Amino acid sequence: MMIKINENFLNVSENYLFTEIAKRTKKYKEEHPEANIIKLGIGDVTLPLANCILQAMHDAINDLSNKDTFKGYGPEIGYGFLREKIAEWDYNKRGLDIDKHEIFVSDGISSDIGNFGDLLDINNTVGISNPVYPEYLDVSVMSGRNKIVYIPFSAENNFTPELPTEKIDLIYLCMPNNPTGTALTKEELKKWVDYAIENKSLILFDAAYERFIEEDNIPHSIYEIEGAKQVAIEFKSFSKTAGFTGVRCGYTVVPKEAVAYDLNGNKVELNPLWNRRQCTKFNGASYISQKGAEAIYSEEGQNQIEENIKYYKRNCNIIRQGLIDAGYEVFGGVNSPYIWFKVPAGHTSWEYFDILLDKVNVVTTPGSGFGTKGEGYLRLSSFGTYENTIEAIERIKNFIKNNN
Amino acid sequence: MMIKINENFLNVSENYLFTEIAKRTKKYKEEHPEANIIKLGIGDVTLPLANCILQAMHDAINDLSNKDTFKGYGPEIGYGFLREKIAEWDYNKRGLDIDKHEIFVSDGISSDIGNFGDLLDINNTVGISNPVYPEYLDVSVMSGRNKIVYIPFSAENNFTPELPTEKIDLIYLCMPNNPTGTALTKEELKKWVDYAIENKSLILFDAAYERFIEEDNIPHSIYEIEGAKQVAIEFKSFSKTAGFTGVRCGYTVVPKEAVAYDLNGNKVELNPLWNRRQCTKFNGASYISQKGAEAIYSEEGQNQIEENIKYYKRNCNIIRQGLIDAGYEVFGGVNSPYIWFKVPAGHTSWEYFDILLDKVNVVTTPGSGFGTKGEGYLRLSSFGTYENTIEAIERIKNFIKNNN
Repeated sequence: MMIKINENFLNVSENYLFTEIAKRTKKYKEEHPEANIIKLGIGDVTLPLANCILQAMHDAINDLSNKDTFKGYGPEIGYGFLREKIAEWDYNKRGLDIDKHEIFVSDGISSDIGNFGDLLDINNTVGISNPVYPEYLDVSVMSGRNKIVYIPFSAENNFTPELPTEKIDLIYLCMPNNPTGTALTKEELKKWVDYAIENKSLILFDAAYERFIEEDNIPHSIYEIEGAKQVAIEFKSFSKTAGFTGVRCGYTVVPKEAVAYDLNGNKVELNPLWNRRQCTKFNGASYISQKGAEAIYSEEGQNQIEENIKYYKRNCNIIRQGLIDAGYEVFGGVNSPYIWFKVPAGHTSWEYFDILLDKVNVVTTPGSGFGTKGEGYLRLSSFGTYENTIEAIERIKNFIKNNN
Repeated sequence: MMIKINENFLNVSENYLFTEIAKRTKKYKEEHPEANIIKLGIGDVTLPLANCILQAMHDAINDLSNKDTFKGYGPEIGYGFLREKIAEWDYNKRGLDIDKHEIFVSDGISSDIGNFGDLLDINNTVGISNPVYPEYLDVSVMSGRNKIVYIPFSAENNFTPELPTEKIDLIYLCMPNNPTGTALTKEELKKWVDYAIENKSLILFDAAYERFIEEDNIPHSIYEIEGAKQVAIEFKSFSKTAGFTGVRCGYTVVPKEAVAYDLNGNKVELNPLWNRRQCTKFNGASYISQKGAEAIYSEEGQNQIEENIKYYKRNCNIIRQGLIDAGYEVFGGVNSPYIWFKVPAGHTSWEYFDILLDKVNVVTTPGSGFGTKGEGYLRLSSFGTYENTIEAIERIKNFIKNNN
């Protein structure tokens, strides 16, 4: 006997995407110290927090300065004041029947989507979009879920894949998608919900970029689709919605109707299981972060966070239109902060990353880092400054013009 | 095929301890609205945060209010500024050679000690103290680790158990222990480290209450014991040290020497594995919480948090001495905020809980909620106010006097 590791960890491939980007950028900078490099690869917000959030968090700290208002351990699954507001503003006001007992507040989507696997058998087959944010694959491999079906999600199928012919138990969907910036319409998402109902599958729906949706036929929540409450868990975050990437707060919706099955095929409700997991292995998000999150749920709060979203969306339009004008094949960027574009024929993602770094000093994100179907594409992000975004796109347009 | 649950979740027993305490207290209050109930069962801090922490957190929020100082995603394993200070103040200044690459900052011990199991094979045998904080057992059962050896840790063996005769792969130790308030001396802890080295075991060492240690021969860190870096992971928190139960910040030490084994018996370093786990399934503790934690690492900061510890320790001494004077058999409370005492013969923990609630209106915590070896004991906590603590102990002493 000896302490043994979970060998599945040895099968997780290193993700070199962002370290490799940083390495190549650093090397270029060293060799070209005069270059004015603009980074449009970044997937992180950059604008200051809205005033309502700042004020609420200062107030929360003041609560902690006085014994009569001090807050120690809160409910592991989040304070009622926040869970009620989430249910009301993000669901009820949109006509969706979700209540606070179905909302679980946490420190963010990465934790929740990674930890949700704790509840599920390792022999479930897993469906993962290609390309997509790498966490879904990594957490599956770590836990020993090796039966993985890749779902092509690319320009060739207009980012609306056919339903799989094999049966998939656990389906990860990121909508709007990172990195392609595209999203399924209600009609297309309904096909997946119907598939899940028919096959007794479970959809883990990552809606991190929901706030960027503009088009009417793109669902803001999977629960807009009839029947979804039986078969879908929704993960949301204040990270992109309200600039909380450093503050850390998000939530997961586990409807009371959502079920999985025991080995005898009996239904087991997932809501109490997730509650048990969180109450055992988590001790709640920071009180300060929860008070900050609560502050966005008022007319004034919504208006304030909308200002930041508008700023990023203006960048997004500049990038999108600029790339189209330059002659690239461009996707996404309408319902998402990300723009996805095809590199000229004959180049890989990394080759064209190097060309743009060298010729116009703009840092992008190679699509091949998100899966094999991302090869031949680059991702641009709208989270830079307005001035840098304008400048970067002008450089790219001039580069194309001068090479034609 | 259908989505299947992790059936191990169905084997986790509900922990009714604190809900049952709340239920009985509420019922008593309803039936005796005039009763002035004092709660000494609580395991949560109650004093306001130290000024240095409050100021640092206000400053951190101000950083988030300006685009030049804004902080988005931080390093998943914690900012360097905090990890360096932890290594310096909690280890190097005490003569222990731990560096910042061995420190992983998180939102707290509950998460880390629960999630650390991700790295380990489910077939490892597990050693759990009895009585002890219930998380270790619950997370083991959830993950399917059913080969559990209970290690009696009670008055009968002077809270210094013999080493197990069977081989245990994974050993949870909580030192100073919750609920008994007792701690192993360096000599006794060395026996466990030597056992782990000899048997290639791993010790998960929960040092949440380290700051309450007074006696010289009680180790503040398991790394004070020679060889421990090969076989021990240490979990620490700012919760009890600095009143962070609502702020959420803690850390885990994974020494570079610490190893587990693959199925062929080859050593595998745990530090890169935990790094991979955290970088995939966690996105860092709140920037605000990390800045608050950093503030305790100065002479002034240490003095400020020491004030709160002294307040609780004064309560602790009052409870401990009061119970001794009343004639109870009393344990703990010297190196811990918890006092553990034997209820009079013929009563269970819950029976005597009810008696104290009814006769003196003091709420305690039944020891049987922490394991079978906790039956016949109650836990008292020093986290109440000074005035309530004095009053509660006077009531208990008078109750005993009037019944003799």
